[in-house]
Amino acid sequence: MRLRNKPWAEDFINAHPEIVIPNPEEQKGKWNSVFNNENPLHIEVGTGKGQFITGMAKQNPDINYIGIELYDSVIVSALENALEAQPLPNLRLLKVNGADLAKYFQKNDVHRVYLNFSDPWPKIRHAKRRLTHEGFLKLYESILVDNAEVHFKTDNRGLFEYSLTSMSAYGMLLTYVSLDLHANMPEDNIMTEYEERFSAKGQPIYRLEARFLSNK
Amino acid sequence: MRLRNKPWAEDFINAHPEIVIPNPEEQKGKWNSVFNNENPLHIEVGTGKGQFITGMAKQNPDINYIGIELYDSVIVSALENALEAQPLPNLRLLKVNGADLAKYFQKNDVHRVYLNFSDPWPKIRHAKRRLTHEGFLKLYESILVDNAEVHFKTDNRGLFEYSLTSMSAYGMLLTYVSLDLHANMPEDNIMTEYEERFSAKGQPIYRLEARFLSNK
Repeated sequence: MRLRNKPWAEDFINAHPEIVIPNPEEQKGKWNSVFNNENPLHIEVGTGKGQFITGMAKQNPDINYIGIELYDSVIVSALENALEAQPLPNLRLLKVNGADLAKYFQKNDVHRVYLNFSDPWPKIRHAKRRLTHEGFLKLYESILVDNAEVHFKTDNRGLFEYSLTSMSAYGMLLTYVSLDLHANMPEDNIMTEYEERFSAKGQPIYRLEARFLSNK
Repeated sequence: MRLRNKPWAEDFINAHPEIVIPNPEEQKGKWNSVFNNENPLHIEVGTGKGQFITGMAKQNPDINYIGIELYDSVIVSALENALEAQPLPNLRLLKVNGADLAKYFQKNDVHRVYLNFSDPWPKIRHAKRRLTHEGFLKLYESILVDNAEVHFKTDNRGLFEYSLTSMSAYGMLLTYVSLDLHANMPEDNIMTEYEERFSAKGQPIYRLEARFLSNK
């Protein structure tokens, strides 16, 4: 994503602690208290401008959602989306690096991870940065409940091919694969900004669901 | 594949027992004696007109190949291909039903299974007939050496999606996936008749390699 300099972003983010959670490391192990209920928590790593996570929160009021995004200039758009959609008591944002998830969540804190149109990092030497690399899968497993799923969408063929073999090698079970999501669009599909743009060009959108197996 | 009536086919097949193996049930457990060497045996289930298996046999003289095809009117084309390519001492054909593999092969007889452009059987009630259905995977495993691979190519998106989840559910390891084989064509790729036709139309060819795990 192209980053624009938005000097006002930091102040705007700090002015909305009810959505962008301040001091998230203090919530580790007690996220239910943030949402004030016992509903399951789904997170999106790399939430971008927030169209997906906001749409999911609207669609599923009995699930708690946290969108995670590192960049001020991007997360402000997600914050604006969230403010427009208020009241959405089941949605929060987290301005942190996805690689640091273990600082903010512990085992059983999270019930599902969403990855959407993640950076493909096409060069082999950058493979460790791909959000479906073994290192990240291990990180997700360390904060998820047992037998939880990762749901992943992308238009990037190379990243999707890589993810299928990476998840298989990790011992995950592929429970769903679509190689052209929009050819048989699920009724409940929430499109991301990228997805709208790429599918309008006629490019196939790939999607998978993969489950961690506790007894592998 | 459209079947044409070829009344001469049966006689032609019977006239070439050096290629289309007669009484194959008698070779069970001793296929090395057919080829008169100890090389590994790779089979293609549904070999069609034989372009793939003939090409593979030419490319890899140290591997034995058997193309399996049920229909007289189709296997005659494979036989003609094999005769034109002579001498190919490492190639044989088998006119049997792929569902009956266990009649002709036993555990450790086979080192790899190839499936190319198999019938997609798109209706759910026909799922058991798909060559990547659990029932067939079990059959392949029962005749393969441990940790052997199935290599599968198709232009059919639905069948490929199904195969990824079916193989994963069976506990197989996906070691390779391409969602557009011809975009990064491997140098040693041998095209089937279907593959030439479909890729010429610009349709993506899907390909995977999946390994049975002996210690799953």
